Amino acid sequence: MEAAIDEARKGFGEGGLPIGSVLVCDGRIIGRGHNRRVQDGSVIHHAEMNCLESAGRQPASVYRRCTVYTTLSPCPMCSGAMILYGIGKCVVGENRTFMGAEDLLRSKGVEVVVRDEEACFALMKAFIERSPEVWNEDIGT
Amino acid sequence: MEAAIDEARKGFGEGGLPIGSVLVCDGRIIGRGHNRRVQDGSVIHHAEMNCLESAGRQPASVYRRCTVYTTLSPCPMCSGAMILYGIGKCVVGENRTFMGAEDLLRSKGVEVVVRDEEACFALMKAFIERSPEVWNEDIGT
Repeated sequence: MEAAIDEARKGFGEGGLPIGSVLVCDGRIIGRGHNRRVQDGSVIHHAEMNCLESAGRQPASVYRRCTVYTTLSPCPMCSGAMILYGIGKCVVGENRTFMGAEDLLRSKGVEVVVRDEEACFALMKAFIERSPEVWNEDIGT
Repeated sequence: MEAAIDEARKGFGEGGLPIGSVLVCDGRIIGRGHNRRVQDGSVIHHAEMNCLESAGRQPASVYRRCTVYTTLSPCPMCSGAMILYGIGKCVVGENRTFMGAEDLLRSKGVEVVVRDEEACFALMKAFIERSPEVWNEDIGT
């Protein structure tokens, strides 16, 4: 989770949404990323998507053994990506700022663990106070 | 749908998965794209995602009035993206090759219309006969 928070901080430092993610397979980080809405004008590079993309094309046998660490509860798009690729587990930094599609993940057999990490929450709070309209756009509201 | 099929054909011509998509708002195409797994080594640029990305950052008020046309039934990731952004309607070329998360879309209030277009089916059949392993990878199996 520390590596995901580092990614979130990197995003914050770039003026972007401070949401980070890493993909771990057999104890090794094979992908990492952060939200790129502000930096690249991207509507699909949420942290988890950017992280999955950075890991490149992987066989189902790898995804199955993977855990996605994300600093914020994953939205329907990112949850859908985890379901598509058969990710085994998702560790969530916090879901106080935003409750994603955790129920959907669980209903599809993905193990979801919520950590409620203060560092993740504080980064989001700082960003949303500064740019509420960008945050609203990021979650489609 | 013709424009989405054109995108699928473009993908096929590039050696890629022949799945295309366009985003229509108030009768005008504001985004278009096709699957980029083979061409860019992308795991997130499914046709619908590539199409949404090409439309750029849009407010919720625009997405709400949008229809996504896609040549193939949308997977959980692409369906999740439509749910995230509050897309109003999704028109599907065919769902014989692959049944996506149409039930999930409907449960979230997205209108889903399935066309069962022979051209969409024929493109997928030709690709899967040529590269079954790439197709399996694309749907996480």
